[in-house]
Amino acid sequence: MRTVAASVACLALGASAAGAEAGPITIDRSKPQPTQAAQPNFSGPVSVSSRFQREGPARVGGGVVGFEPGARTAWHTHPLGQTLFVTAGVGHVQKWGGPVEQIRPGDVVWIPPGVKHWHGATRWSGMTHIAVSEALDGTSVVWMEPVSEAESDSPPHPSNG
Amino acid sequence: MRTVAASVACLALGASAAGAEAGPITIDRSKPQPTQAAQPNFSGPVSVSSRFQREGPARVGGGVVGFEPGARTAWHTHPLGQTLFVTAGVGHVQKWGGPVEQIRPGDVVWIPPGVKHWHGATRWSGMTHIAVSEALDGTSVVWMEPVSEAESDSPPHPSNG
Repeated sequence: MRTVAASVACLALGASAAGAEAGPITIDRSKPQPTQAAQPNFSGPVSVSSRFQREGPARVGGGVVGFEPGARTAWHTHPLGQTLFVTAGVGHVQKWGGPVEQIRPGDVVWIPPGVKHWHGATRWSGMTHIAVSEALDGTSVVWMEPVSEAESDSPPHPSNG
Repeated sequence: MRTVAASVACLALGASAAGAEAGPITIDRSKPQPTQAAQPNFSGPVSVSSRFQREGPARVGGGVVGFEPGARTAWHTHPLGQTLFVTAGVGHVQKWGGPVEQIRPGDVVWIPPGVKHWHGATRWSGMTHIAVSEALDGTSVVWMEPVSEAESDSPPHPSNG
């Protein structure tokens, strides 16, 4: 999954006493990755690009995930939560035991620490989101069982049309 | 700047023993905010939407910032760094003492902790990015002096075309 290393353009900007505290600004100009039919902890075709994990004292990491129609994560939790920025398509997110909620471009989703959930595309539309989460002791996700077809086909919550 | 609170749709999903550790998943369905001609710590017309700051133990926060052509931040630093996801337009980022770098949709920018920098639109195109940073002792940004017209008009680095 760490496929972007070779395409990261580490642009060393000029340093000065005022701005050289912690190295250069880097710009990842990587292109979207090809969709893969099978990825661990996902069901259905998914692409992952621009993956990153900042080094301490920072702890944020993430990437851009594209789900083909019907594709989704397995059930999982994040020890310090996760924020999703939906950028394209129409998707679903569901908390364990709760209704399926529909998410669209511009929506920003917050999954609190420890909350078991899944996210992915709808059956009839792909979905792309930027995912951001913080690592706790080096771990940012705990993967669980796959989401069944019956679970992922649940109708969206009425409040979301 | 905290203008989205009223438009946040806090959708309480059903809870279960397995998924109720830390409250509901929330979905911010807020619309982009109107562009404002004057915002503290910015030069030029800027819109800010979907602002968030997660509560401890998480410490990540951010928002979506739209810069009209020529608009930009002041010089500033982030105690734990900042990640920018460019989603539209063409922009600039510059480290203090370094060249101006051009950034485009799909680029992911990392500004390390303590690095003095600015970012914004080019003179001829607006730019929108999602900005994410971690708060250290409740502070995620330290604002400094405005970026001069001469500084923001610097030509982009040759490596970026």
